[in-house]
Amino acid sequence: MKKLLSLILAGTALTLALPASAQFAKAEDAVKYRKNALFVMQQNFGRVAAMAAGKAPFDAKVAAESAAVAEFVSKLPWAGFGPGTDKGDTKAKPEIWTDKAKFDDYAKKMEAEMTKLAAAAKSGNMDNIKLAVNATGGTCKSCHDDFRAK
Amino acid sequence: MKKLLSLILAGTALTLALPASAQFAKAEDAVKYRKNALFVMQQNFGRVAAMAAGKAPFDAKVAAESAAVAEFVSKLPWAGFGPGTDKGDTKAKPEIWTDKAKFDDYAKKMEAEMTKLAAAAKSGNMDNIKLAVNATGGTCKSCHDDFRAK
Repeated sequence: MKKLLSLILAGTALTLALPASAQFAKAEDAVKYRKNALFVMQQNFGRVAAMAAGKAPFDAKVAAESAAVAEFVSKLPWAGFGPGTDKGDTKAKPEIWTDKAKFDDYAKKMEAEMTKLAAAAKSGNMDNIKLAVNATGGTCKSCHDDFRAK
Repeated sequence: MKKLLSLILAGTALTLALPASAQFAKAEDAVKYRKNALFVMQQNFGRVAAMAAGKAPFDAKVAAESAAVAEFVSKLPWAGFGPGTDKGDTKAKPEIWTDKAKFDDYAKKMEAEMTKLAAAAKSGNMDNIKLAVNATGGTCKSCHDDFRAK
């Protein structure tokens, strides 16, 4: 019984201790995953941003759908920034891992603004969409300025 | 008034007539979008499939989250298969565009199986997860066999 319990606990500890990168078979999968999720997000965000800037005709349905996708996908890239994923084909700066709290804070802010954008796009109010696009774009830029190499 | 109406109608027709590829600034963005969405989906599906195959320890929470992400993302790649996106860095066969109905049918079947997998993973029942993983994997394979070059 004691042995069984310690096995169960050992199993639990192992699971809880798994870093995000352990979700990927190799580090390069994690790098690819975060880049691919960010691209899918950016394409959807960019479609709404183009409408907000008057560079594309406003289509309320497409805007709402695109913003909803961008919101969902905005939660995905971070699993790809686990320990040991600072190498390879990436513009990620080492500061992501040395100043993780700041990076995580930027990520949370971006997710929060993307949620506001999805709500604005759902409402179909272009003034609100414009404000939300600007706020969201600001969080992208802050993080890229600090954590992405040129 | 007549001029205004015809302008509005012209605008509407333009919007309705936009092919999926027009959601992208260039065809290569569409190709990248579908590949990136499929990779994000595959990584999440693969995580659940590894658990189902006993190659990774079963973590009900991670399985449920991963299957939910795979389900959501399974709806995204198809926008990237619009007209004119049959070129470039892609393994997509020309049959995707010449036998679009069959391709779309495969896509719908995969989405439906991914929805069943998400439900099975949410329930946490490993027997159901195994069945759903096999069924979903089968839809991936059918489509790749017919529509993806080696």
